[in-house]
Amino acid sequence: MAGNSFGQLFRFTTWGESHGPAIGCVVDGVPPRLPLAEPDIQHWLDRRRPGQSKFTTQRREPDQVRILSGTFEGLTTGAPIALVIENVDQRSKDYGAIKDQYRPGHADYTYDVKYGIRDYRGGGRASARETAMRVAAGAIARRILGDTVTIRGALIQIGRDRIDPDAWDWNEVERNAFWCPDARAAGRWESLLAEVRKRGSSAGAVIELVAEGVPAGLGEPAYDKLDADLAKAMMSINAVKGVEIGAGFGAAELSGEDNADEMRAGNDGRPVFLSNQAGGVLGGISTGQDIVVRFAVKPTSSILVPRRSIDRFGNEVEVSTKGRHDPCVGIRAVPVGEAMLAVVLADHLLRQRALVGAAAAAG
Amino acid sequence: MAGNSFGQLFRFTTWGESHGPAIGCVVDGVPPRLPLAEPDIQHWLDRRRPGQSKFTTQRREPDQVRILSGTFEGLTTGAPIALVIENVDQRSKDYGAIKDQYRPGHADYTYDVKYGIRDYRGGGRASARETAMRVAAGAIARRILGDTVTIRGALIQIGRDRIDPDAWDWNEVERNAFWCPDARAAGRWESLLAEVRKRGSSAGAVIELVAEGVPAGLGEPAYDKLDADLAKAMMSINAVKGVEIGAGFGAAELSGEDNADEMRAGNDGRPVFLSNQAGGVLGGISTGQDIVVRFAVKPTSSILVPRRSIDRFGNEVEVSTKGRHDPCVGIRAVPVGEAMLAVVLADHLLRQRALVGAAAAAG
Amino acid sequence: MAGNSFGQLFRFTTWGESHGPAIGCVVDGVPPRLPLAEPDIQHWLDRRRPGQSKFTTQRREPDQVRILSGTFEGLTTGAPIALVIENVDQRSKDYGAIKDQYRPGHADYTYDVKYGIRDYRGGGRASARETAMRVAAGAIARRILGDTVTIRGALIQIGRDRIDPDAWDWNEVERNAFWCPDARAAGRWESLLAEVRKRGSSAGAVIELVAEGVPAGLGEPAYDKLDADLAKAMMSINAVKGVEIGAGFGAAELSGEDNADEMRAGNDGRPVFLSNQAGGVLGGISTGQDIVVRFAVKPTSSILVPRRSIDRFGNEVEVSTKGRHDPCVGIRAVPVGEAMLAVVLADHLLRQRALVGAAAAAG
Amino acid sequence: MAGNSFGQLFRFTTWGESHGPAIGCVVDGVPPRLPLAEPDIQHWLDRRRPGQSKFTTQRREPDQVRILSGTFEGLTTGAPIALVIENVDQRSKDYGAIKDQYRPGHADYTYDVKYGIRDYRGGGRASARETAMRVAAGAIARRILGDTVTIRGALIQIGRDRIDPDAWDWNEVERNAFWCPDARAAGRWESLLAEVRKRGSSAGAVIELVAEGVPAGLGEPAYDKLDADLAKAMMSINAVKGVEIGAGFGAAELSGEDNADEMRAGNDGRPVFLSNQAGGVLGGISTGQDIVVRFAVKPTSSILVPRRSIDRFGNEVEVSTKGRHDPCVGIRAVPVGEAMLAVVLADHLLRQRALVGAAAAAG
Repeated sequence: MAGNSFGQLFRFTTWGESHGPAIGCVVDGVPPRLPLAEPDIQHWLDRRRPGQSKFTTQRREPDQVRILSGTFEGLTTGAPIALVIENVDQRSKDYGAIKDQYRPGHADYTYDVKYGIRDYRGGGRASARETAMRVAAGAIARRILGDTVTIRGALIQIGRDRIDPDAWDWNEVERNAFWCPDARAAGRWESLLAEVRKRGSSAGAVIELVAEGVPAGLGEPAYDKLDADLAKAMMSINAVKGVEIGAGFGAAELSGEDNADEMRAGNDGRPVFLSNQAGGVLGGISTGQDIVVRFAVKPTSSILVPRRSIDRFGNEVEVSTKGRHDPCVGIRAVPVGEAMLAVVLADHLLRQRALVGAAAAAG
Repeated sequence: MAGNSFGQLFRFTTWGESHGPAIGCVVDGVPPRLPLAEPDIQHWLDRRRPGQSKFTTQRREPDQVRILSGTFEGLTTGAPIALVIENVDQRSKDYGAIKDQYRPGHADYTYDVKYGIRDYRGGGRASARETAMRVAAGAIARRILGDTVTIRGALIQIGRDRIDPDAWDWNEVERNAFWCPDARAAGRWESLLAEVRKRGSSAGAVIELVAEGVPAGLGEPAYDKLDADLAKAMMSINAVKGVEIGAGFGAAELSGEDNADEMRAGNDGRPVFLSNQAGGVLGGISTGQDIVVRFAVKPTSSILVPRRSIDRFGNEVEVSTKGRHDPCVGIRAVPVGEAMLAVVLADHLLRQRALVGAAAAAG
Repeated sequence: MAGNSFGQLFRFTTWGESHGPAIGCVVDGVPPRLPLAEPDIQHWLDRRRPGQSKFTTQRREPDQVRILSGTFEGLTTGAPIALVIENVDQRSKDYGAIKDQYRPGHADYTYDVKYGIRDYRGGGRASARETAMRVAAGAIARRILGDTVTIRGALIQIGRDRIDPDAWDWNEVERNAFWCPDARAAGRWESLLAEVRKRGSSAGAVIELVAEGVPAGLGEPAYDKLDADLAKAMMSINAVKGVEIGAGFGAAELSGEDNADEMRAGNDGRPVFLSNQAGGVLGGISTGQDIVVRFAVKPTSSILVPRRSIDRFGNEVEVSTKGRHDPCVGIRAVPVGEAMLAVVLADHLLRQRALVGAAAAAG
Repeated sequence: MAGNSFGQLFRFTTWGESHGPAIGCVVDGVPPRLPLAEPDIQHWLDRRRPGQSKFTTQRREPDQVRILSGTFEGLTTGAPIALVIENVDQRSKDYGAIKDQYRPGHADYTYDVKYGIRDYRGGGRASARETAMRVAAGAIARRILGDTVTIRGALIQIGRDRIDPDAWDWNEVERNAFWCPDARAAGRWESLLAEVRKRGSSAGAVIELVAEGVPAGLGEPAYDKLDADLAKAMMSINAVKGVEIGAGFGAAELSGEDNADEMRAGNDGRPVFLSNQAGGVLGGISTGQDIVVRFAVKPTSSILVPRRSIDRFGNEVEVSTKGRHDPCVGIRAVPVGEAMLAVVLADHLLRQRALVGAAAAAG
């Protein structure tokens, strides 16, 4: 089964290359009669759009989304929803130099060895531009989840510099160029990234996502565990190298009694958990607590510092990537991660609805 | 789509509860004419089997696998392969006390809230017993991968105690009860786990898996990236809370130039990589280097130390789990992780073969 | 994706060869808390069981089904349901003669050319024995559909002899050895089949299935149309060569005005259709009318009359199939067709429930 | 799983409504390095295009296809191929009258009852316009099949008037407006359809498809039989009510010895079949003979003759469909059927390649 689709019941398929005429996706399985118009999707795309600060790529793409099918008089119809964004600022000349070279850390070599052919213009299909359509699909997923579910993300680490968790302020996230919840860390990162850029280098990052209001009972126990699907969703984002849920790798260092979240009786008949090491998932199924996911993004491999490599003829070369690149691609991964969290939750909400009916699935 | 299957072309479906009559799986999509008999599978099951040391559960299951279909005269036929293991040592009485209680850190509550019914005997479907069938499926996957691919795993951390990477010796892995590649760490862990057990507590762990000889070109670029499927595979194992590929979360702390693996020309026309921060995957596609995956296992929540919880009637209770449990479930996760790595690779090998033909897929 | 599974949300996977130790299936996606015990499945298996009259194979299989997982205290749990039937009366010797020969009209040659290996004992995986597990899965599907949906089938033609549609009596179906709704046709078929058997030949048949009480709204418009999935379901049954819905091929001969079923207003707000040329499906979606499906079964190719063929070494041979065979396999296809109708409806009921919620899906 | 996709390895997803801005599809799983440009697809679309004769709808759509992704320098890259056709001649006013009415024989009622909302303009998603994208996907499938496979279709019956099989001439198919292989029948149909149109009525049809050069060994034995997938493919085309393979329903009337195709040894080591009642499929697997499929198309329900119906408020109404409609939609179903045959074969070719490797799959 070809690999450009994600999800089972809420399922989207993306297409398009960085420097082709357009990118797009088809979102299938969307329940009918949900309000949906282009601004509902554009709102989220604008958060991811390049060129918004000096810390993201200077490629200027308006990223105006068009809905080509699946809605009627402002409502979804149950038919597949086709979305398209035209590629405007392509500047193919920027990339001609690397036509035959394999940029270290990039997918140039692996595409060539896999397919025997490669659209080298701007990374082609491997470009992070593909993630725009994830954000678009995520916007529709949020419609399915409704207003009771809140999905937010934040950058909690750049390079070796982590935020102070006690300083976490969701309002701060919208105020700086990093989606950083800690105002002081945001200040430090300004100079950190300026220095990285000056060196012609790049920096990695860690993102934390939180979904509040997720009903208990979502996720399939064995292979399609909620956290397994989340791990796949996050790891499928370009440049991601690690994913964790709740305490994550830190769970390995806890004692059994510190790790297992205790429960007390809540007023509404549901349990109140006294901690959330589990990150909202037990046995692959949501507990009703916040879903907490973190993922690590490697530093972009598009750097000015020259690196040793080979070309596709086997010659040894030095590669230095000019052009417009983010010194920290992790920043723009925040809205992408949020979107992937939304699509996984929407898919599992529909799956649970199929299993037990709508009332029960709503928790 | 129901959640008890894994894989696309190499696809297996598991069934069975901890205390039902048997557990089993059906493996579909296996190419014909591969040699396969019960001992080929039993060999790997024996590595996972409980009751082999004082550090794993004392439940005594011979775990004798039977092949019920799909082979003929010692060869696979292309028909689905059904495997079954009878449950022998069930001792249902051990579990009666927790019939109505929700054990903290376990899936008791989430199963009840999801399904409105729960087979409480030994964890039912949520029991780690299900992982035996993953190991069985993995044994068949290894047949597809053939002798040129080597898959091995090791325990590299228990609690806060990590191995010394410089002391890594694969031969040592088979010599101690922990699949530990560092003899001195193995010695320390003996006393560490004895102490944990004495306290009635449990410890978490980190496992590292390495696949050598994997051809370049496996993995689909967008959503079914090789590393995305590996992340799902590992996170779907019971008690896993984090997954990373190559440098993993550490990649966030590297500079772009330290993270991007440089290449030089090899004698065979393929590149020689000078490092492996990528863990053998670029753009979701294997590079031909070693595939390196790590995952974190939380400490088992089945502990003697009493913990606060509620029962299914909403009463507040104290839960203390007696019965036979591993002080560190991470130990037995090593062969399970190896198996999941094998099934992901076999699936993608067949997918690549569909795309480009057999010769190219073999790399 | 391997081919031994059927359905999307209600999904079953069958395994087993005619002369292996057992056959079985795993049914995944079954909603929890449905009453289910072995007799619920056995009831339907007994209708298909061989050896019940002189017009079906004399192979004596008790076909006792066992449930190995997925139920607890008489209710489904939402976990996968494993079913197994042991093969008892295998008589492998009967088949040794055809080890190397390709029986005309059978899958011997195609299995060899596809797989390069063939379990020749009793047809192996290609044996109609596989259909027992379809009937078992169908029994579970009926539980999901509930009592408001009635699924029945009848044999309406053997060879060139068709029933009189005006003589249709559902009660008669249970009274004769043919599932024939026309008592006089049943009488004629007794002598017809006696004569066929005497000649060492075999006869084809046509089956009609009717599902009453199916809610309107089931089926996906484009590719997973309800009738498209029904066509696949029926054509996947061994020896089936044609499928039609409602007026079927006869629709090609109707005028537009005779074909389009008129509607009047019903008392309950739903339309009353004045005819049912559509067979209960419009645009791939159920109308609330009876679903009417017919399929044609070829005469079994296992006949005494000698036929020209070749063996796997390329030698020309004459093949005459001895052993125990049905003179008209269409008879035993009736309960199999009913089961496949049930599984398609159950799957689409769950899909509709996912899309619009339980209340709406129940029609 | 949402229903707008078809195929497993060669998989396409269509979108778009009759009167939206465009229709399109995404074709995933296409092997790399196949030559593909817009004219390769346009060639087949032009055969299906409306407005080409007085016997098909007078809607004038140039149906100019654009490739938006997945090719580079005239070759496929392995990335998903997005195709789009703009809707030009929409004339929404034609359809306003039926906004609230349920046209008999159409999907108006079933869409409303399924979704609770309906894009009534020109049939919306239910419009036969969707089939243009099937033809486009089929053009790509033909590239995968290569030049050794020939797929052709013909109209063999309109209303009650069948062709003379002995007069079959493939060259004639391209010479008349009906894809009719019998020149004399084509002549009769001219007057037949003129009379049908004059009456404000419509006629049904039967199409026969033949695929030559298909390698033996394609198809999965149990549920994804080649003929089962073909049955689904054909029944999923708008207005199709019946499908048959080889002798089809006629097989029910044959004796076992007349039905089972005899084999003799061929010069190339492969069998020579002495007849083709099987239609090229045994046990769900291709035999290497011609694949022969027939399907029946009902008369269009868009007719001038007034018919009784209701509207969505429950009022009883009379419906007479004006606007531009084909008197026999079966004519334009010929290229659509050819395309669906191509996509099923391409998908199974890739599946067989995954199973046994490329050389064996090529037969």
